[in-house]
Amino acid sequence: MSKLTDVPKRILIGRALRSDRLGETLLPKRIALPVFASDPLSSVAYAPGEVLLVLSVAGVSAYHFSPWIAAAVVVLMFTVVASYRQNVHAYPSGGGDYEVANTNLGPKAGLTVASALLVDYVLTVAVSISSGVENLGSAVDFVIEHKVLSAIAMILLLTLMNLRGVKESGKLFAIPTYVFVAGVFLMIAWGAWKGIVLGDTMKAPTADLEIKAEHQGLAGFALVFLLLRAFSSGCAALTGVEAISNGVPAFRKPKSRNAATTLALMGALAVTMFCGIIGLAMATDVRMAEKPATDLLRGGVPVGDDYVQNPVISQVAEAVFGPGSFFFVLLAAATALVLFLAANTAYNGFPLLGSILAQDRYLPRQLHTRGDRLAFSNGIVLLAGAAALLVWVYDADSTKLIQLYIVGVFVSFTLSQIGMVRHWNRHLKTERDPAARRRMFRSRAINAFGATFTGLVLVVVLATKFTHGAWVALLGMVIFYGTMTAIRRHYDKVAEEIAAAEERPDEYVRPSRVRSVVLVSKLHKPTLRALAYAKLLHANQLEALTVSVDPAETKALKAEWERRGIDVPLKILDSPYREVTRPVIEYVKGLRSENPRDAVSVYIPEYVVGHWYEHLLHNQSALRLKGRLLFTPGVMVTSVPYQLASSEAAKKRARKRQEWNAPGAVRRGPVDTRRKEPSGKA
Amino acid sequence: MSKLTDVPKRILIGRALRSDRLGETLLPKRIALPVFASDPLSSVAYAPGEVLLVLSVAGVSAYHFSPWIAAAVVVLMFTVVASYRQNVHAYPSGGGDYEVANTNLGPKAGLTVASALLVDYVLTVAVSISSGVENLGSAVDFVIEHKVLSAIAMILLLTLMNLRGVKESGKLFAIPTYVFVAGVFLMIAWGAWKGIVLGDTMKAPTADLEIKAEHQGLAGFALVFLLLRAFSSGCAALTGVEAISNGVPAFRKPKSRNAATTLALMGALAVTMFCGIIGLAMATDVRMAEKPATDLLRGGVPVGDDYVQNPVISQVAEAVFGPGSFFFVLLAAATALVLFLAANTAYNGFPLLGSILAQDRYLPRQLHTRGDRLAFSNGIVLLAGAAALLVWVYDADSTKLIQLYIVGVFVSFTLSQIGMVRHWNRHLKTERDPAARRRMFRSRAINAFGATFTGLVLVVVLATKFTHGAWVALLGMVIFYGTMTAIRRHYDKVAEEIAAAEERPDEYVRPSRVRSVVLVSKLHKPTLRALAYAKLLHANQLEALTVSVDPAETKALKAEWERRGIDVPLKILDSPYREVTRPVIEYVKGLRSENPRDAVSVYIPEYVVGHWYEHLLHNQSALRLKGRLLFTPGVMVTSVPYQLASSEAAKKRARKRQEWNAPGAVRRGPVDTRRKEPSGKA
Repeated sequence: MSKLTDVPKRILIGRALRSDRLGETLLPKRIALPVFASDPLSSVAYAPGEVLLVLSVAGVSAYHFSPWIAAAVVVLMFTVVASYRQNVHAYPSGGGDYEVANTNLGPKAGLTVASALLVDYVLTVAVSISSGVENLGSAVDFVIEHKVLSAIAMILLLTLMNLRGVKESGKLFAIPTYVFVAGVFLMIAWGAWKGIVLGDTMKAPTADLEIKAEHQGLAGFALVFLLLRAFSSGCAALTGVEAISNGVPAFRKPKSRNAATTLALMGALAVTMFCGIIGLAMATDVRMAEKPATDLLRGGVPVGDDYVQNPVISQVAEAVFGPGSFFFVLLAAATALVLFLAANTAYNGFPLLGSILAQDRYLPRQLHTRGDRLAFSNGIVLLAGAAALLVWVYDADSTKLIQLYIVGVFVSFTLSQIGMVRHWNRHLKTERDPAARRRMFRSRAINAFGATFTGLVLVVVLATKFTHGAWVALLGMVIFYGTMTAIRRHYDKVAEEIAAAEERPDEYVRPSRVRSVVLVSKLHKPTLRALAYAKLLHANQLEALTVSVDPAETKALKAEWERRGIDVPLKILDSPYREVTRPVIEYVKGLRSENPRDAVSVYIPEYVVGHWYEHLLHNQSALRLKGRLLFTPGVMVTSVPYQLASSEAAKKRARKRQEWNAPGAVRRGPVDTRRKEPSGKA
Repeated sequence: MSKLTDVPKRILIGRALRSDRLGETLLPKRIALPVFASDPLSSVAYAPGEVLLVLSVAGVSAYHFSPWIAAAVVVLMFTVVASYRQNVHAYPSGGGDYEVANTNLGPKAGLTVASALLVDYVLTVAVSISSGVENLGSAVDFVIEHKVLSAIAMILLLTLMNLRGVKESGKLFAIPTYVFVAGVFLMIAWGAWKGIVLGDTMKAPTADLEIKAEHQGLAGFALVFLLLRAFSSGCAALTGVEAISNGVPAFRKPKSRNAATTLALMGALAVTMFCGIIGLAMATDVRMAEKPATDLLRGGVPVGDDYVQNPVISQVAEAVFGPGSFFFVLLAAATALVLFLAANTAYNGFPLLGSILAQDRYLPRQLHTRGDRLAFSNGIVLLAGAAALLVWVYDADSTKLIQLYIVGVFVSFTLSQIGMVRHWNRHLKTERDPAARRRMFRSRAINAFGATFTGLVLVVVLATKFTHGAWVALLGMVIFYGTMTAIRRHYDKVAEEIAAAEERPDEYVRPSRVRSVVLVSKLHKPTLRALAYAKLLHANQLEALTVSVDPAETKALKAEWERRGIDVPLKILDSPYREVTRPVIEYVKGLRSENPRDAVSVYIPEYVVGHWYEHLLHNQSALRLKGRLLFTPGVMVTSVPYQLASSEAAKKRARKRQEWNAPGAVRRGPVDTRRKEPSGKA
């Protein structure tokens, strides 16, 4: 374990590790589990409550449907876990749902999945933070009284941490996650012991409230619809399951098997916790309502707007451990911490997906190169901004935000599983080994079932949640999809425009002669260096060029030029209106039109400075001129830098910047193994 | 006159005018007067009121001092006009007070004057706009009800007009200024006719209010101090007088004489209007108070916070022309318009002064080149931002803002006049012609008197207004002074660092050989062009360099390289962490350390695109790399542009930008004649 804290430093800052030593930096299962599972495990903090909340619409009597809904969620969880176990075997490269859909269903499906995942990351942040604040708020009053403020402050904190590139370690994930899991299991065991063995009556703080049913005695289609809605909400427990399929490269060997085992373990933990909490909630008579202010009654009177409806997990913990007890506070803290960690996973996943999309030219190219801090930062800021906006619009209310959440998850589940079915179909066409074919048939059956089930859930989610907010998530997907399509189209258009012709490729682009022009304002070291460098590269003709903005200065320059005996002719351009750019551009154009097949090489001496404010004081005319010259065909522009003493400061800054860590490295694994050809082995 | 509308277009956009045709573009006196005088003439809209306001502190009986104060202002105006008539003869180059102080008193005095003028421009905007809004408000209720909003909206409008470079013409200035002057003279004449000949009693709207004196029966030192304060406020009428001394080059020949005549005319008009308005105010019993809400009583009761104290000029106009009459509304509109024009002069003067300061390296160098839209825009935005801040802080209350105003004006008056005395002293040392010496003695006497008088006024202003707000103006001056000193020091330090040594200047900067490296990512037209251009410039060694971010892509690149038979060796750098910048930098550094006397020339193919969003999609890695390479000694970086079809759009935009007009051209005159050596002739 002690080695683990060094891992990210070594991966990222590292002295380049040799490939055969990369094994050391990989995650054992006991660390991989918390690294990847904080998102799905933490969702048991809100999913059970959402089920009860929806059921309460039909009154407290509908609560007896909750075990059935829990059972449905468990079946779904097993299905999804079983399906993704096929994925990690078939695609050990960690491309995840995007890669699966892209490879097997084509780029449009891939882009749809990518859009869904991007929206998902935003909502992971918004939902997890909001729920974390609610859980923390059950123990700390200040937080719940300033809910939106606390949530946005937390988003800001995570953003800054990720922008600064705080170093990660597996421990960081392991401790809170294991504390949380242990706490929930302790709660379930303790509750079962007290309730069943000791026969104590445990009362949730809301046990003596009544629920005013919005629709008393629902039956038939209306009841089914309500149950489906409750089920949809319970599906929030499934979010984040796919994360492991993106992280296979980070596992120790045998990677795929370890990843599959971890996936199964995670599924088992999640459903146990989910069912345990629902069970305890039933046993302790937790009462939750969609609109607590009006629909929860204390002695027949609505509890009113001031009432704060605490999460189920915290109500249950209060019933089992006692209000304000050590374990109650510990569990509340661990829950909040795991939820914040879950939010943090989105900060890692969003730029990573961006980098994969950039490789396929759906996003700006520079996002692809790793450790590109600027690109990474832009992604982080976009993610945080969108999440903060949602938190603000929806009052940091996890119940409202969950309505948006599940669409994206099930879009990518469904498309990924359909893609897997195609994957097996393709491999079955060529595979002749009967044992392999049997395994493939089995895998295909699992994925086909997974695709059908998650597809059905997607339909249910859309049907029950569209007007409750799912349309916002769909709109977000459409915007991402549209933007990325436009970017790809632009890149394709440019690629076509610049494609080199086959026959005599450089015939027409190669000029016959080159004339070099060195721009001069004063005779100082930068100018002398530019002249010296220009001389090194033998042009057919070399001259120095100055623009006469001030006749006296120009006269002095000319005199010194002659006095020093500089063997390059000095050409002086008049500029009655004290412009610099236009005369130079026109002169260069003139050179070109005299000899259209000549190229012109313009040398510009540049100061290299160390502070941003010095940039305002230097090179501005040079930069502008350079910008304009680039538009002039047949011209190349050479910057001859002169490093001023102050540039050392910037050099140091640049070195420091280069040592920056891109967060999310722990779960990403070494880069080399990523995106190889998918293996056909199940 | 019809030619005048074409003037700015021709000056600025122009087909380069030949010097001998420049005469046509110059201003005749009848146009020069309104162009330069909107600022000083418009100040009669607020100066008389300020005098009454201060006097009211000692009760209405103190109003009888107002003719004496008016007389003092008149004497001061004549002194200043006489003094500046010497300036325009001695410094026909239009450098103005900054040049005079700088040349004769040294750079510190020059910089002090410059700081004072910069603060002054900010306050010209704030005061003129606020007063314009008050005058407009006397006719249009909405404006006075939303005073701060209206003032800031007006600042915004002027800013946008100036940023866009709306074309100017002399007419633009002439019509409102002459309407305003004619209106005021008509009012004075009509009032005198009605009052003296017809014997009508004219009553200002405030005539039946009483003033509660804050200090009844002031005497001795306290009274003198109050009278001096009233005089200081009246000195607001002097602001802007110096503008003509900046604009001599814009006049028709004989420039200096025409400028001097215009100056005298302006002074005569200003004092007549000022005295006329004070006289009418006395005749119509205008009542104004510093704190109208509590100190103005109607039937013994304070008028309260809702009371709006209209400017004297509008009260007098109401008394003479009748409330709501055509002439009343016309004069209010013309007054507001002239005040807004006065504000606009600051928008012209601020960047112009900036350009002169830039020439002396007190401000970033690029401000010096004319028609530099970006630099101009920065100046405009800084000016507007500072003015808007003042308007907001001081509730667009011209009375409060005037407390800040006059310090800067008199700092530059005084230093300029002291400088002129030195100027004459210097010339008297060498001048032997008795007639010329006599003229010089006379000029020196005028300037000496001017320096003494304005210096005294400066002391009075500082003494009477320091705590009322003048300290803010002084603070602003200190900030400008400090910033400009720091910039100058930076430029001096850099100049020293880069000064070319005398002995064998380029010995140590000249490398012996050069190795060229062409950066390659794919084989397309931009790459082929970069290769072709690099070959043109014969280096001692030429190679292509690619960073292997994706092994498959690199393999494909290598294969195509060979297939096409490109005769430049392709070097492939491994990049296990998918970085681009670091491997290239390290390779280049390696080349240098192998042969420290070699230079390295790096060619980077660049896409030239037309829209800002395309920049986000292209060249980002190239730009970052270039930035880093510039810090590496012994390296020059060549951009080989490839113009994509979309770059046409940017070319068009650039052309359009180049045709942009820098506002203020009318008053600036042709650039060639500016800043010649000052002549010694009086």
